[in-house]
Amino acid sequence: MLIRCGYDIAFNTDAKTAMVALLSVHPSRHQDLRTPQRLMASPDIPLYQFEDGFRNVATRFAIPPGGVTLSCDFVIEDSGEPDARAPDGPQIPVEDLPDAVMPFLLGSRYCETDRLMDVAWGNFAHYASARDRVDAIVDFVHNHIEFGYHYARSDKTAWNGYQERRGVCRDFAHLAVTLCRCMNIPARYCTGYLGDIGIPPVDAPMDFSAWFDVYIDGNWYTYDARHNCPRIGRILMARGRDATDVALTTAFGPANLVRFDVHTDEVQSIE
Amino acid sequence: MLIRCGYDIAFNTDAKTAMVALLSVHPSRHQDLRTPQRLMASPDIPLYQFEDGFRNVATRFAIPPGGVTLSCDFVIEDSGEPDARAPDGPQIPVEDLPDAVMPFLLGSRYCETDRLMDVAWGNFAHYASARDRVDAIVDFVHNHIEFGYHYARSDKTAWNGYQERRGVCRDFAHLAVTLCRCMNIPARYCTGYLGDIGIPPVDAPMDFSAWFDVYIDGNWYTYDARHNCPRIGRILMARGRDATDVALTTAFGPANLVRFDVHTDEVQSIE
Amino acid sequence: MLIRCGYDIAFNTDAKTAMVALLSVHPSRHQDLRTPQRLMASPDIPLYQFEDGFRNVATRFAIPPGGVTLSCDFVIEDSGEPDARAPDGPQIPVEDLPDAVMPFLLGSRYCETDRLMDVAWGNFAHYASARDRVDAIVDFVHNHIEFGYHYARSDKTAWNGYQERRGVCRDFAHLAVTLCRCMNIPARYCTGYLGDIGIPPVDAPMDFSAWFDVYIDGNWYTYDARHNCPRIGRILMARGRDATDVALTTAFGPANLVRFDVHTDEVQSIE
Amino acid sequence: MLIRCGYDIAFNTDAKTAMVALLSVHPSRHQDLRTPQRLMASPDIPLYQFEDGFRNVATRFAIPPGGVTLSCDFVIEDSGEPDARAPDGPQIPVEDLPDAVMPFLLGSRYCETDRLMDVAWGNFAHYASARDRVDAIVDFVHNHIEFGYHYARSDKTAWNGYQERRGVCRDFAHLAVTLCRCMNIPARYCTGYLGDIGIPPVDAPMDFSAWFDVYIDGNWYTYDARHNCPRIGRILMARGRDATDVALTTAFGPANLVRFDVHTDEVQSIE
Repeated sequence: MLIRCGYDIAFNTDAKTAMVALLSVHPSRHQDLRTPQRLMASPDIPLYQFEDGFRNVATRFAIPPGGVTLSCDFVIEDSGEPDARAPDGPQIPVEDLPDAVMPFLLGSRYCETDRLMDVAWGNFAHYASARDRVDAIVDFVHNHIEFGYHYARSDKTAWNGYQERRGVCRDFAHLAVTLCRCMNIPARYCTGYLGDIGIPPVDAPMDFSAWFDVYIDGNWYTYDARHNCPRIGRILMARGRDATDVALTTAFGPANLVRFDVHTDEVQSIE
Repeated sequence: MLIRCGYDIAFNTDAKTAMVALLSVHPSRHQDLRTPQRLMASPDIPLYQFEDGFRNVATRFAIPPGGVTLSCDFVIEDSGEPDARAPDGPQIPVEDLPDAVMPFLLGSRYCETDRLMDVAWGNFAHYASARDRVDAIVDFVHNHIEFGYHYARSDKTAWNGYQERRGVCRDFAHLAVTLCRCMNIPARYCTGYLGDIGIPPVDAPMDFSAWFDVYIDGNWYTYDARHNCPRIGRILMARGRDATDVALTTAFGPANLVRFDVHTDEVQSIE
Repeated sequence: MLIRCGYDIAFNTDAKTAMVALLSVHPSRHQDLRTPQRLMASPDIPLYQFEDGFRNVATRFAIPPGGVTLSCDFVIEDSGEPDARAPDGPQIPVEDLPDAVMPFLLGSRYCETDRLMDVAWGNFAHYASARDRVDAIVDFVHNHIEFGYHYARSDKTAWNGYQERRGVCRDFAHLAVTLCRCMNIPARYCTGYLGDIGIPPVDAPMDFSAWFDVYIDGNWYTYDARHNCPRIGRILMARGRDATDVALTTAFGPANLVRFDVHTDEVQSIE
Repeated sequence: MLIRCGYDIAFNTDAKTAMVALLSVHPSRHQDLRTPQRLMASPDIPLYQFEDGFRNVATRFAIPPGGVTLSCDFVIEDSGEPDARAPDGPQIPVEDLPDAVMPFLLGSRYCETDRLMDVAWGNFAHYASARDRVDAIVDFVHNHIEFGYHYARSDKTAWNGYQERRGVCRDFAHLAVTLCRCMNIPARYCTGYLGDIGIPPVDAPMDFSAWFDVYIDGNWYTYDARHNCPRIGRILMARGRDATDVALTTAFGPANLVRFDVHTDEVQSIE
């Protein structure tokens, strides 16, 4: 399956403002690109990429006074398969987890494992299998939080989401990630493209999406507490401990987002 | 100057419990070791080291039922010089900072930059030099928080410390780190040995200490908001975004700390 | 299966001589350790470990005038299974290989891919499957080179081994690695313990062994051109491009090896 | 000083051929870019970048049947200063070198330290200072090898260059790197742009250049055994152990270079 993705995003600012953007396809999907993925800026300011500590591709630049528009458009190949289900079986004891996954058991800015430990152990201790435990966590979060775009708040944490019971996809992901970590299941936060492929069209402007991965039986598996069903055509951009690490853009000074268009559509050819 | 450091730390537990310890000298000090730094366990359980994402040396093991005692003792050479002062001069604009220091501008579990942004800009915006700004932040934190061992709380964040105005060295470091990051000065949290060298003896049990580094003019410089004066003989163990990354020990299950002795003393010879 | 491994190795030297040793079990086997793996030195000089660019554990120290003995002894768990066979199927085109394996297609000090390209394509181009191609390379090398301990020479390259037709396990590995790389199959050189487990006892002093890995169908598989049959109980120490990267010890000055005892035996208990 | 750099390079091939190119400015110079550095391909094939093990930016793509042209053009800021001279002083003992520089003491494909050890110690042992030793090595190599474009040979090593006494800038660099490593001075091979800035115009087609870095007194310093004088305006592309690691392009199959134009000129404005 071919998917055409991209965006037009614009910022206004009065003064030169440094920015880091995590708006590139993740290296794990580089070899699926069928056209080059070139980030264009208008005006054509200098920008460059670097690989961050989570192996995401970050772009650095300074927004000039007056602002900048960033654009990207590319075609990528996808299996067309829905998210794979994790295999059933007992959870890996922490002492047997690989070193590299250990950071994904710790707390982070939006995932206060210490505050949600009792909630997690009170609700999810009795599952024998890691997959059943994660399924239960995802069901719980999906039912516990009411979705609404107007519930978005940039400083909302998993604990806030748990208490307020309202949020956006980011809040679903943060709460589920936190509960998994409390139960000693490594979990990482993901962002990327997720179009309406294989589902009825959704009457809302296209946005990037947040989901999460859990480490079960030696591999990472994708879960989505917002939608709570396997989806087709996720194009991963960035992974990290939580939304801090993978913010689409981080401005180091005042910058107003004045345009935000994202597209993700199945296409028949590269044309 | 030779410094002899080490510890005896014991945990009790009923069931096998995985643990990660950050109790080794940081690789940046490896070449100063004058005796081997061997971590001994009693009973002699298998344990191994790995380098974490911040280049700290982490030790992994499983505490057996009944518990374990970890011990270490070594001699290390130190310059005997107090913490170096950062050079004076204008702050590096964010767009000119190296890629590798960028994560140390972001929020983290115990450093809620988003919540303290107004406090930071309200108090520290008018300084022209990075060094003066950091000095002001350190003075502010030193005076704002009252030190007391009984104020320690494992889930206390910079925001909590700012509001409650009470804390331990960790809380001083978290608040200062957060305020520096708000002002776009990269800051990282540090733990290690800090003995009573060059100061009058302190009548309190020896403990590990927390301080922080800021990135000024192309190098990292050590600051200590708890003591607010240059000190001699810091032996760094671990650095990270905050106490989450560099917890001395992280238990993945119930484990009671039943012994905790740390020593750090100037010695005349290796003997 | 439990395997007890270790060594006693001694060097003599007149003057302080820096050394790097790759004599630790590879991190991928850390979790199989059943007793701690402690490197002891006599005299008890300072030494420390670091992770090299291939994720091997390297030990650094300076041999004092008069020399040093290094000792290690530990018990490790092993599956007891012989080396797994690679799956059959077409070779992965280079453009689809992961970025991280690409260095293992290049030439290196002892693997002159440029000089052996014609030999490789002349002999191994007609195989349709990656596994058959590697099998053919291993057979070829096994038959082409005559084994003999007295054929060891520290500057012998794959090209030399191909021409001289005599060598030790290192030369078998270098030639096979080079031919695989010429055929665009990523190959890396490995060193470690390999005892006489599951085979008739060999009447020669125990030594460390060299073998190699090839990347087929998305995973690395172990091959051994010296023995040309699956073996039980390989305990990996280090991996790299060739023997340069994973030399057991590299002395930066004159140092004479005066003792070299290695042991690797199946045991029934940790005792 | 502003420098405008770029290239047009074309390959012909009959069949799809994988390629890795190291034709991007090194990350250490990213922040000096004054215009974006975009690699364009004609036809517009998919290509992507990754960071290799030496922190160079590598580009991967498959040349389609019929061939491809790669183009790049950008403006970068430079200090305009000639290569800095290393400070004088005694050489750092190997045991005090940082872990990260140790690989640059070892042999590599084109740098046979084992074969040139006697040449190195015979000629350069009597210098007390690291800088004097490197100066002597650079003088020696500069005078020992006769420069000539027609002496270029892709499999020529430092040892070959030493014996044949003819070569191109790559051969000068390989021999000097090897001799430095023999003397326990870490040395790495570099490629990049080097225009005729600050020197009389050279009547030869512009090419990329090879030089090398040595680690003295805690920093890397640039040396150039081909020109044997400090130069202005080096724009680093890639660093590694030798030309294997930083080949401008590595084709994994037959590909003919049919066009090769490089430009590097001082300019007055970005225009």
